[in-house]
Amino acid sequence: MNIHGIPTRTLRADPARRAIEIIDQTRLPHALHWVGVGTLDEAAHAIRAMLVRGAPLIGATAAYGLAIALNDEADDTRLDEAIAVLGATRPTAVNLHWALARMDKVLRPLPPAQRSSAAWAEAAAIADEDVAQNAAIGRHGLELLRRLPRRDGRVLNVMTHCNAGWLATVDWGTALAPVYAAHDAGLPVHVWVSETRPRNQGLLTAWELAQHGVPHTLLADNAAGLLMRTGQVDAVIVGADRIAANGDVANKVGTYLKALACADNDIPFYVAAPRSTLDFACANGAAIPIEERDGDEFRLVHGTDPRGTPAAVRQLPAGEAVANPAFDVTPARLVAAIITERGACPASRAGLLGLYPEETA
Amino acid sequence: MNIHGIPTRTLRADPARRAIEIIDQTRLPHALHWVGVGTLDEAAHAIRAMLVRGAPLIGATAAYGLAIALNDEADDTRLDEAIAVLGATRPTAVNLHWALARMDKVLRPLPPAQRSSAAWAEAAAIADEDVAQNAAIGRHGLELLRRLPRRDGRVLNVMTHCNAGWLATVDWGTALAPVYAAHDAGLPVHVWVSETRPRNQGLLTAWELAQHGVPHTLLADNAAGLLMRTGQVDAVIVGADRIAANGDVANKVGTYLKALACADNDIPFYVAAPRSTLDFACANGAAIPIEERDGDEFRLVHGTDPRGTPAAVRQLPAGEAVANPAFDVTPARLVAAIITERGACPASRAGLLGLYPEETA
Repeated sequence: MNIHGIPTRTLRADPARRAIEIIDQTRLPHALHWVGVGTLDEAAHAIRAMLVRGAPLIGATAAYGLAIALNDEADDTRLDEAIAVLGATRPTAVNLHWALARMDKVLRPLPPAQRSSAAWAEAAAIADEDVAQNAAIGRHGLELLRRLPRRDGRVLNVMTHCNAGWLATVDWGTALAPVYAAHDAGLPVHVWVSETRPRNQGLLTAWELAQHGVPHTLLADNAAGLLMRTGQVDAVIVGADRIAANGDVANKVGTYLKALACADNDIPFYVAAPRSTLDFACANGAAIPIEERDGDEFRLVHGTDPRGTPAAVRQLPAGEAVANPAFDVTPARLVAAIITERGACPASRAGLLGLYPEETA
Repeated sequence: MNIHGIPTRTLRADPARRAIEIIDQTRLPHALHWVGVGTLDEAAHAIRAMLVRGAPLIGATAAYGLAIALNDEADDTRLDEAIAVLGATRPTAVNLHWALARMDKVLRPLPPAQRSSAAWAEAAAIADEDVAQNAAIGRHGLELLRRLPRRDGRVLNVMTHCNAGWLATVDWGTALAPVYAAHDAGLPVHVWVSETRPRNQGLLTAWELAQHGVPHTLLADNAAGLLMRTGQVDAVIVGADRIAANGDVANKVGTYLKALACADNDIPFYVAAPRSTLDFACANGAAIPIEERDGDEFRLVHGTDPRGTPAAVRQLPAGEAVANPAFDVTPARLVAAIITERGACPASRAGLLGLYPEETA
């Protein structure tokens, strides 16, 4: 996609310097800062502190983080250590573990001297595949969007939650890939962007939609139900951090509430995610670990001061008790379809295995 | 209730000076400021700009605002004008119109010279009745709370939305009256307080619960569903801005999403409100006007700077499009019971008429 009109991916690899550059998303939308990542610790910090976020981008960053970790030494001890450090950064997004397992499978059989270059090549393959898979999700999702009735007779009104656009991936996004595909294909589309408290990733979604010229409107998370009840929403599309084998979906906290409102108002609720988000080893949503994050994410609110300089206000003293789960689980029964790079399927074991028959074994 | 240990109501009338004092709730919880209201314009501004908010307190303030308007002249023209000005301040809370209609009914038959003192007396009666009714809601609600199973075997976990405590009324509150009654009766109770974006009235709820020593934890509105699915919520109680004749409930935006999550998790969803919130003339929720408020409520976030001084940050530029409906409608089918000063009843026409048979005509 483009930032200020200039084509870019969200993760720039520089194998010659054996480092990567990422966007510090904690400073968006108020400031655009590219940050170099050249050590294992920096890679782990970038994921843990959410400089990068979004399940697919976490996976790609972890892959490159492992390559970076093997720059100078690459024996089994270092490989084990790096996988352990990166794997412990965040618990819910399974793409992290998927990417590390894939890297391990390629690297482990190799002699240590060959591992570094192989790691950079495999990380690049993961990143390239992410881009291609998201483009495919866009095409499959567009087919679904084309068939939807538009309640206002003109524009298709799509609601999303959190940020599952190109900022959450290497490019294109998951939930937003069909939206970009629709916009580029001339299907008039407008996006309802929910704020996504407490970290306000909706502001990232608004920022990236604006970069691509897609009409959109922000709303408080609380307003989603009213907009649905008053006929202003034709579909909801979200991404996912992990999809269990039965089709239950872990995604940003608040997703479940939107899915309930869709069900109550006969609005299709779609989940878009690549293969790396599917966890066939996880029987159902109850088995997905839910990350509890620091309460200061809730207590402090970030924005800009009157001069436009990044600033924050404290809305609660440090001592006030806060519950801050980062994800929730939407049961499969509320999901109209899961859209992957292979197509759309029902949110069920049978549906997922229909797309991925090789997992039947 | 008490503020810093000192008993007070949220509205202090001074008939001798023919003025009232209110708390400027836009500055809570960061600063406690009492503000004098001595003119019709000041009363209308206090309601419109939400220095006072909460349906019952809006009603009482409007009643005193009318008394203030009649301080110097009280002919029919002035009476009409004052009712029109106050009635136009906010559209959704029906208590506003209920209080003005009650005042009009008392004042209109009187000669103008007698209207001012009668208006101050009637406004005081409305305020006193609000206090007594909310205390009764507390007693009736406590009966319901006592009967609920406590999922953790010890503490009753009650979730609320917005602020329907004593700050939203003249005293005691509506939704929180049963909570205070439970706490005072020794029933161990803990309150989940949702932030209530975009205006963050949950922070008011946390503040007033803290004044009374009730244990509580704040959460992002998005987290409500997860807490319910994981067995951490025994009941939800909210207030209301208007209840239609069929039991549909207009309340702070986001209420509907919580009611849906209650239904999906077999958790009772209660609505607590006095008679003045019931609108028997309104057939159902679709007929309730929903206020759309200024988008800057969403674009600006208020808190304190590092020195504790009230401050705000801008999270969106003024040009970014925002949808900001202040209320939503929860259909009666999702409401376990409506709790009024007369008792608890099913959320239906028959249920409400059972409590208010005089409305059958």
